Amino acid sequence: MHYPGVVLGRLYEGQECSAARALELVGERWSLLILRDAMFRGSTRFSQFTQSLQIATNILAKRLASFVEAGLMEVRQYGPRADDREYVLTQMGLDFMPAVIALTEWGDRWVGPGPVVFEHRGCGGHVESKLVCKDCGKAVRPGSVAALRRNGPRP
Amino acid sequence: MHYPGVVLGRLYEGQECSAARALELVGERWSLLILRDAMFRGSTRFSQFTQSLQIATNILAKRLASFVEAGLMEVRQYGPRADDREYVLTQMGLDFMPAVIALTEWGDRWVGPGPVVFEHRGCGGHVESKLVCKDCGKAVRPGSVAALRRNGPRP
Repeated sequence: MHYPGVVLGRLYEGQECSAARALELVGERWSLLILRDAMFRGSTRFSQFTQSLQIATNILAKRLASFVEAGLMEVRQYGPRADDREYVLTQMGLDFMPAVIALTEWGDRWVGPGPVVFEHRGCGGHVESKLVCKDCGKAVRPGSVAALRRNGPRP
Repeated sequence: MHYPGVVLGRLYEGQECSAARALELVGERWSLLILRDAMFRGSTRFSQFTQSLQIATNILAKRLASFVEAGLMEVRQYGPRADDREYVLTQMGLDFMPAVIALTEWGDRWVGPGPVVFEHRGCGGHVESKLVCKDCGKAVRPGSVAALRRNGPRP
């Protein structure tokens, strides 16, 4: 299933692909596990992450600092001691959830079912990641997706 | 926005999360760029990848071999010479597209617009990644997603 000629010219000049840049921010096993713990367990404190993930404290400290620097989390001081800090997902961090779910679904399907399923709160239904056409509203199969240069010429 | 008590017990025992395992297979900048080139440019030959991505040949060879080993690509011999080989995405590889699109959208929104947009072939509309409830059919916001243990107790 090839799509030759769909995109003219060098689509990825400089390789400044958003997906690659997104992966650079979170594309490491521990990073993803920390984000997921924050998203779905509501972990915010250093001790919660270490207990839940059994991650080395130096790695955790480094990852949390990088999330704060990147804007995925923000620090909240909830008490007077220096250690009384919470790491809270920002909107940028929460918004990474659809990518986590898409990655999880692929892993479930092709690597083997993992321990987690996603449920629609209130409804109780199964949440899944779908490709949808914003214009016609239909579900779109991967084979029906073309990648085009933003603001560029149509093929 | 925390969800304490939503999931009882240790959700990620052993951390065998599908998303983490998925990232391990493709969670590296070059890997993603190679997959994307195969998905959207239809690149299959070594020379096409090197020309398009300007990637070092030793890195490319290693990544292609790992994709074949993992099952994301398969090798097709199209001519008599040893070098007459194509690396073709399998269904497993093609099926990674929704995750690439979800990652791209997040990067576009939070890191800055990248060079690529996704179009619905035939329709011309904009393809986007959505969280949808399989049961009620509605679009689901990240705040309305709960992670539960597969086959485990409801909270």
